[in-house]
Amino acid sequence: KLRVILQLICPDRPALVSELSGWVAVNGGNILHADHHTDVGAGLFLSRIEFGIEGFGLPREAIAPAVNALADRLGGQAQLHFSDEIPRVAIFASKQSHCLLDLLWRTRSGELPMQVPLVIANHSQLEPLCREFGVCFECVPMTPASKPEAEQTMLDLLAEHRIELVVLAKYMQVLSGAFLERFPTVINIHHSFLPAFKGAQPYHRAWDRGVKVIGATAHYVTEDLDDGPIIEQTIEHVNHRDEVEDLIRKGRDTERLALARALRLHLCRQVMVYRGRTAVFA
Amino acid sequence: KLRVILQLICPDRPALVSELSGWVAVNGGNILHADHHTDVGAGLFLSRIEFGIEGFGLPREAIAPAVNALADRLGGQAQLHFSDEIPRVAIFASKQSHCLLDLLWRTRSGELPMQVPLVIANHSQLEPLCREFGVCFECVPMTPASKPEAEQTMLDLLAEHRIELVVLAKYMQVLSGAFLERFPTVINIHHSFLPAFKGAQPYHRAWDRGVKVIGATAHYVTEDLDDGPIIEQTIEHVNHRDEVEDLIRKGRDTERLALARALRLHLCRQVMVYRGRTAVFA
Amino acid sequence: KLRVILQLICPDRPALVSELSGWVAVNGGNILHADHHTDVGAGLFLSRIEFGIEGFGLPREAIAPAVNALADRLGGQAQLHFSDEIPRVAIFASKQSHCLLDLLWRTRSGELPMQVPLVIANHSQLEPLCREFGVCFECVPMTPASKPEAEQTMLDLLAEHRIELVVLAKYMQVLSGAFLERFPTVINIHHSFLPAFKGAQPYHRAWDRGVKVIGATAHYVTEDLDDGPIIEQTIEHVNHRDEVEDLIRKGRDTERLALARALRLHLCRQVMVYRGRTAVFA
Amino acid sequence: KLRVILQLICPDRPALVSELSGWVAVNGGNILHADHHTDVGAGLFLSRIEFGIEGFGLPREAIAPAVNALADRLGGQAQLHFSDEIPRVAIFASKQSHCLLDLLWRTRSGELPMQVPLVIANHSQLEPLCREFGVCFECVPMTPASKPEAEQTMLDLLAEHRIELVVLAKYMQVLSGAFLERFPTVINIHHSFLPAFKGAQPYHRAWDRGVKVIGATAHYVTEDLDDGPIIEQTIEHVNHRDEVEDLIRKGRDTERLALARALRLHLCRQVMVYRGRTAVFA
Repeated sequence: KLRVILQLICPDRPALVSELSGWVAVNGGNILHADHHTDVGAGLFLSRIEFGIEGFGLPREAIAPAVNALADRLGGQAQLHFSDEIPRVAIFASKQSHCLLDLLWRTRSGELPMQVPLVIANHSQLEPLCREFGVCFECVPMTPASKPEAEQTMLDLLAEHRIELVVLAKYMQVLSGAFLERFPTVINIHHSFLPAFKGAQPYHRAWDRGVKVIGATAHYVTEDLDDGPIIEQTIEHVNHRDEVEDLIRKGRDTERLALARALRLHLCRQVMVYRGRTAVFA
Repeated sequence: KLRVILQLICPDRPALVSELSGWVAVNGGNILHADHHTDVGAGLFLSRIEFGIEGFGLPREAIAPAVNALADRLGGQAQLHFSDEIPRVAIFASKQSHCLLDLLWRTRSGELPMQVPLVIANHSQLEPLCREFGVCFECVPMTPASKPEAEQTMLDLLAEHRIELVVLAKYMQVLSGAFLERFPTVINIHHSFLPAFKGAQPYHRAWDRGVKVIGATAHYVTEDLDDGPIIEQTIEHVNHRDEVEDLIRKGRDTERLALARALRLHLCRQVMVYRGRTAVFA
Repeated sequence: KLRVILQLICPDRPALVSELSGWVAVNGGNILHADHHTDVGAGLFLSRIEFGIEGFGLPREAIAPAVNALADRLGGQAQLHFSDEIPRVAIFASKQSHCLLDLLWRTRSGELPMQVPLVIANHSQLEPLCREFGVCFECVPMTPASKPEAEQTMLDLLAEHRIELVVLAKYMQVLSGAFLERFPTVINIHHSFLPAFKGAQPYHRAWDRGVKVIGATAHYVTEDLDDGPIIEQTIEHVNHRDEVEDLIRKGRDTERLALARALRLHLCRQVMVYRGRTAVFA
Repeated sequence: KLRVILQLICPDRPALVSELSGWVAVNGGNILHADHHTDVGAGLFLSRIEFGIEGFGLPREAIAPAVNALADRLGGQAQLHFSDEIPRVAIFASKQSHCLLDLLWRTRSGELPMQVPLVIANHSQLEPLCREFGVCFECVPMTPASKPEAEQTMLDLLAEHRIELVVLAKYMQVLSGAFLERFPTVINIHHSFLPAFKGAQPYHRAWDRGVKVIGATAHYVTEDLDDGPIIEQTIEHVNHRDEVEDLIRKGRDTERLALARALRLHLCRQVMVYRGRTAVFA
């Protein structure tokens, strides 16, 4: 059955839950899940309400305007999603297949409510895998010199395929600020336990430091590399017998898991981003 | 600041969130946390609402009757707690000190919002520990023959100390159905990953089975031993080098943690029990 | 470089490490890893020694006889493996693809040192997946009546493909004792935290019990269903919001991981089985 | 029964295991545990051998010289411990009691094979706790100006009590290089997942960053703050509902666990330190 997910963030004040749930009730909606959070320090109220709209008093196309009016009145901002919208997602990759394969399989099996019409890579190795899954594969090589042009090509591909979300599945390139300005909704998997080992070669540096746990971090991409809002972090134990290649191997499992979980949370509209951080209503 | 925690369970129908939050708002309360769950199979709606009552429209003593009337109207049941009520808790123990000491320390440090006026044990070893923490220690020995009388003594002690909750912190005796009928709110820590290794000597049996993970389960006590509603479960990895005594040693840490977490959840009124299970609004 | 892995189990007595390592040294081998375990209760000594044989004093074909003579003298049993032997493994599956795909990908990527020449399933759905990975797929349907004949067909296929190890990757059939007598080396993934929830529908029963953690168990198969020696167990946290289908979904990740880890341990000859249990030299 | 633990580190070459175990066997020792590791990159061989010396060919006082001669011949270094030596450990603390209490209880219960004759703190709050456990408590206040003198007082106390190991159990002062030069064996618990959040107030910074996991790191202390060899790391999940004080509260459990585990590993002589890292033979 069709459900609506309403995410709202606004300055905190009394009676907000009542106001929101009252608005749903008065229109004849039936709340299935409701979760709220008050960031006391920031003085902000965050709410996620999921409700059925069978017999709803407003036609579908009138719901968003009504919700925006409500949000305006509360001095906040709202996002509205319908459960029958299956987001169009592009995956960016380089040479490594583990995250890409994992996402394609989870999509095909129905675990991830998304469609993947497009994979972009700066190398050609992953083309056969994409062909097996019936996904359009575009190779867009990237050199420092060609970067502006290559990113333009990628933006054009995203527009052409009407992509709403980009997932960096071990894409070993840094997206420019210009790119992110034009396409801001990007989730990345970083192969360390941020903020430890920001930047390149985290497993090598983790080995050098002699850590006993490694991790992976799925986060929204911002212009400050590896500083975006964290959605999910996973960890794996290691010991002195593990060489760098063992860390890399063990890390693949924790990377896959962190990315898949974060992506599912995002797609189920369970993540709200504010002030450089996330509230995850799981 | 004074807060009220309202827990309500009733048959599911539309507009319940609105009704509850509306009731809070109309009386001038300010919701700080609200969490709801619908058990679709059971057709039940569970709600936990925490709200401030500065300037509330009802005097404190009128809130419970009003809430009960509301619950009646919804065909459900409500529980009401005020944040300034610090429950009086008795801990039952035998010879092992790790859980008892942990709970006493957490109480003293403020981690667990409770008072412990009474410890009852069927052995005398833990008396000095209780004395250090200034807690009344009562030794009530227990044999099969003396059980009815001993349990009566314990019930008298609970009444005398106005105890609301009993915690079995490695109390190696089984409370009778008669006891539980008269004092039903009891939390136990079982030293296995229920439902694995119900009953006696779980670590020995875990070793015999050659498991690679052990665990602990904190649960409400029912007459069916080890079958009560589970609040929290924790685990610990083991390997072939671990002897039974290593399992017992490692187990102590996971027992302490499961029990302390479960108790805190209970004391913060984050646990709702229904149909032999729990919803934990954490 | 070529390495030999020697696993030996024998009654415990002094000087065994010296005897074994002395034998390697005297023949000019270079020990890379050595790990030993004494099961004090059973009076057994278990040893795993991995050594390079560049310039070894014995020709390759003479090593096994020499090792067996050594084991005989110690009243024990030895197993010998060369690192350039890549085991031929058959995967049995039914309809679910997650474990099969995971194993095929890990094989292709080099994470699992094995070859998979054969997949057998009692349903046909997984044929396209096998074709993508270039693996021979044989559908052997199974009914109670056809079971003896079907198992014979499967045994013939195993012989024809010279299979050394069978992995049950969510194969929803029970192998008969007769099958196991003729082909004893089988690893299974059970979708619960054994010994909890032996038998059918563990996730449904886990939900009914209201557990807070689910798990998966990879074990060697014996005629007593779900009672074989455990190699690896993994867990996943769940809460009251998780329906049975969420347990199943979350369970898939923990199943994949437990099976892949157990299989790697087996293939790297890090597992020794004795008395219904395993020593895992990881 | 009396056991000897021999730790040896030397340049890697063939036949080392044979040489060491042969030396034990020839003297009539019985190896109970033997574990070895080769750091291929560093070209180093590390070995830990635990053996019984009933009927050993050398008198107790001759074992160390013999072992040192063996180590010299191999160009390495050895450490020798007897299982009946119970190390004398001093605990340094400030105001927080959770780690101190945990260590004192584990010592009393026999989990940690050590004696604690001395606690030093720069504040007086923990004196009653130490008195309860019958431990000598010395308050040595610390200001920037008084630091040299205070550290001298502490060194004198360590000498007077014949202390072999210092454990910093939430001691909120930095030991100077001069102190460490004179007393180098110090274990610290840092309340973050190193190398993330080095330095002060890691929980505040973790909250600011919006991480989803916090951790604790037990490590040997070196002059470079928070850069010493890591022994153990533990983690705890957090979410957006957790305020800084919740991170601190949750962190206490993970700190206690990491410190207790690391200390036990050290006391059981399972840790070898080399090149700024540890091999943990657990």
